[in-house]
Amino acid sequence: LCWLTLCWCSPDPRLRESLMQQEASRQTGGRLLLTEAELRLSAQLHKLKEQEMKSSDFPPALHFFKAKPLIQRSLIYSLLQRMPKGAALHVHDFSMVGVEWLVRNVTYRPHCYMCITEDQSVRLLFSFSQPKPKPQCSSWMLLETLRAKMGNTTDLDNSLIRNLTLFTEDPEAAYPSQDVVWKRFEQAFISAWGLVTYAPVFKDYYYEGLRQFYMDSIMYLELRALLPQTYELDGSTHDSAWGLKTYQDVTRQFVSEHPDFLGARVIFTVHRGLNASMAWKKVEEAMNLQKAFPEIMAGFDLVGREDSGRPLWYFKEALSLPGERGVNLPFFFHAGETDEEGTDVDGNLLDALLFNTSRIGHGFALLRHPVAKALSKKKGVAVEVCPISNQVLKLVSDLRNHPAAVLMSEGHPLVISSDDPAMFGSSGLSHDFYEAFVGLGGMNSHIGTLKELAMNSIRYSSLSPQLKEKALDLWQRKWDKFVSENSQ
Amino acid sequence: LCWLTLCWCSPDPRLRESLMQQEASRQTGGRLLLTEAELRLSAQLHKLKEQEMKSSDFPPALHFFKAKPLIQRSLIYSLLQRMPKGAALHVHDFSMVGVEWLVRNVTYRPHCYMCITEDQSVRLLFSFSQPKPKPQCSSWMLLETLRAKMGNTTDLDNSLIRNLTLFTEDPEAAYPSQDVVWKRFEQAFISAWGLVTYAPVFKDYYYEGLRQFYMDSIMYLELRALLPQTYELDGSTHDSAWGLKTYQDVTRQFVSEHPDFLGARVIFTVHRGLNASMAWKKVEEAMNLQKAFPEIMAGFDLVGREDSGRPLWYFKEALSLPGERGVNLPFFFHAGETDEEGTDVDGNLLDALLFNTSRIGHGFALLRHPVAKALSKKKGVAVEVCPISNQVLKLVSDLRNHPAAVLMSEGHPLVISSDDPAMFGSSGLSHDFYEAFVGLGGMNSHIGTLKELAMNSIRYSSLSPQLKEKALDLWQRKWDKFVSENSQ
Ligand SMILES: [Zn+2]
Ligand SMILES: [Zn+2]
Repeated sequence: LCWLTLCWCSPDPRLRESLMQQEASRQTGGRLLLTEAELRLSAQLHKLKEQEMKSSDFPPALHFFKAKPLIQRSLIYSLLQRMPKGAALHVHDFSMVGVEWLVRNVTYRPHCYMCITEDQSVRLLFSFSQPKPKPQCSSWMLLETLRAKMGNTTDLDNSLIRNLTLFTEDPEAAYPSQDVVWKRFEQAFISAWGLVTYAPVFKDYYYEGLRQFYMDSIMYLELRALLPQTYELDGSTHDSAWGLKTYQDVTRQFVSEHPDFLGARVIFTVHRGLNASMAWKKVEEAMNLQKAFPEIMAGFDLVGREDSGRPLWYFKEALSLPGERGVNLPFFFHAGETDEEGTDVDGNLLDALLFNTSRIGHGFALLRHPVAKALSKKKGVAVEVCPISNQVLKLVSDLRNHPAAVLMSEGHPLVISSDDPAMFGSSGLSHDFYEAFVGLGGMNSHIGTLKELAMNSIRYSSLSPQLKEKALDLWQRKWDKFVSENSQ
Repeated sequence: LCWLTLCWCSPDPRLRESLMQQEASRQTGGRLLLTEAELRLSAQLHKLKEQEMKSSDFPPALHFFKAKPLIQRSLIYSLLQRMPKGAALHVHDFSMVGVEWLVRNVTYRPHCYMCITEDQSVRLLFSFSQPKPKPQCSSWMLLETLRAKMGNTTDLDNSLIRNLTLFTEDPEAAYPSQDVVWKRFEQAFISAWGLVTYAPVFKDYYYEGLRQFYMDSIMYLELRALLPQTYELDGSTHDSAWGLKTYQDVTRQFVSEHPDFLGARVIFTVHRGLNASMAWKKVEEAMNLQKAFPEIMAGFDLVGREDSGRPLWYFKEALSLPGERGVNLPFFFHAGETDEEGTDVDGNLLDALLFNTSRIGHGFALLRHPVAKALSKKKGVAVEVCPISNQVLKLVSDLRNHPAAVLMSEGHPLVISSDDPAMFGSSGLSHDFYEAFVGLGGMNSHIGTLKELAMNSIRYSSLSPQLKEKALDLWQRKWDKFVSENSQ
């Protein structure tokens, strides 16, 4: 660039071109060599994107709840649905399946009871006989009886659906602050709890989750899972090993029925509200599970709202345990899911990296930590970007301002994921891919961006090198088919 | 960092400390050596900031129109008002002075007429006799007569004030999109036009502007000025040279009355809606003004909404003119005031740098252009950050997500400014400094940040090296006094 300062009249157009090229090649997917067919498809996408950007209601600038109907009509979206997106690496256990299924299938099963709390949230439970009363909740009603009395059950079912998701017509008014939306998030989570921890539902829910992701052109999944105690109608219960074994069995069954699906692995998660000694026990439990189920068990993470939870450094003794015992328990920490800067929690990003995290969940604050950012790039620690989650949980409003737009322009290792799709009403990864491609990428993202994002999801997965190679081969075949079918 | 990978158990606390130190020293003001008194003041500010961050209504997370009453009550704000902030480098000519003054002083002068447009915006004009009718406007009413009839003029005055600013109780509802808020911005600008281009008011307005900035502890100003044709009551008019000469005379007068104020310089601005040949003429005019008034004339810029204007590259012939003629006409381009990525307009940042811009106005999109960002840092081209302007004009909503938070964490050269304080109802630089210090900086910014931002405003001004030295000396004396008076 030294000849730049010599130019005191007009900039050299070749220099300009070369700097623009430098920027283009630095971004995610900017250095991939593309086939003719890929370039044709890219040109189509570019045209479609120009049209969508001209609209006064540009979906990524709107709240997802308002943008969703627009996205559903988008031709880009329908292409992204069919596009082989690789793996979903950041999805939580009880928010995999669209809540329609929970309401229309699960709550119609026999023995399903409901009570209504003082603040109008529902609690659901399976039980042979009338369950014992719950404090601050109405008396338990058998849904079967209730529905039989009502005749038209549409209102009840819709109200259940609203209880189990964050969706609302006017999200800006309903959720004025992060505190309010997180409270509502936790309520919806508790509402679903009694359904999804019922052992038969636990199993079916996971199978349905795999099916929905598979239908969204996903071929592999890594699930953040609490592995909670599950229960049977007779009151007997199962522990975390049962849960993990169930995931393993159902995964094997699903793969045998869908040979072009590669499977799933589980990241055991515990709540960051735990105290140090509880966390210690949970890490020990994780090491035991890892030893007993090495195929499905991928590692360990802490979950729950970062801003109100304990910082990673608080758990340093527990997190040092695997290292001290010579056990390899990979970490996949949520870190930097915050707008606050310079707080203890804001230290999580650096600490996650110091504890050798395999990936970073969200990393929303990463740009504000240039040293952590450089470390993450150097060590190849990918950021799991969940645009819709960050918008609904009010970290950012216009998704063009999402920090991952910058990470993309810098070619930082990243993958796109959906966090809690059921809570947000998004499906699989396609809505988040839409936001990433159209909103975060703007007119700069192209077919190479999509290709690299899909390949990243395999590259940065917890799979062994052999399985990664197998996965990439399978993905490439699907990709080539997709490109040849859709490029004109 | 190479020993990091050797550690497979617990991270070394000394390594952690050292990485945190690296990050702290990289940020704006992170490498300044601070005095004992400065450290004491910083500790006070830190405590105050902790309290404000705990509030559920954290001002930088709110729209400025809602945050302003909270900021007014903040002890941090009152300190920032008194703090010597150095120079205001990005302020527009007709948005310097709080509109209260325009309404309560200017519209009460004799011969002031008003008409109301079909879309309920006002037009104002000084005239000896009834002005000739204006299309799409009501008949002209003499405000003196109107007020005499009304008795109570509060409603009229308040409605004038609302016409001349963007303020509204519910900005999210009133301004649903960038298009709407920019339209309103342009209307308010036109409403003020007939007042501020009346030659006697032009003079007084500028004097009052200097006074208001001076009262906000600013010691020097660089004004983006359109230098429009101004008029007298008898219908005679003045050209741009008269305007510039007036600025020079008033500045000299103000400085002679306030010896601790250093003066002002003018950046001649033209609208980016111009065509190429008009722009060519305007650049020629700028070169002539530069020759005739080298003391006050600082350079050239293009203004108006970037997204709907012509990109800089469109004007390349006109902008190459000074270089071709061997004339040194410094540029101070607005660039990157956009959320759109990969459009022609989004190329403005790189082109501004290729045309050797002295500073970048806004640079909101700079993070998405890593090559341009590196170039700006390397060449020492400071970014003029105007947080409140960017929020009100809907580039970003929560100011903690403003990209300059990242620029600050990287120690990028930047200054804080207020763009159009009168339009937004902010005063001088203090409100923007509050947003920068509390919102952009979070808990990481400290007295060193404020000190460096103030010194930057002199360092990156258009002043000669000699005048910069003089300015820094004067600023340092004011600063030391401020610190000793406010550190307990
Ligand atoms: Zn998550
Ligand atoms: Zn401006």
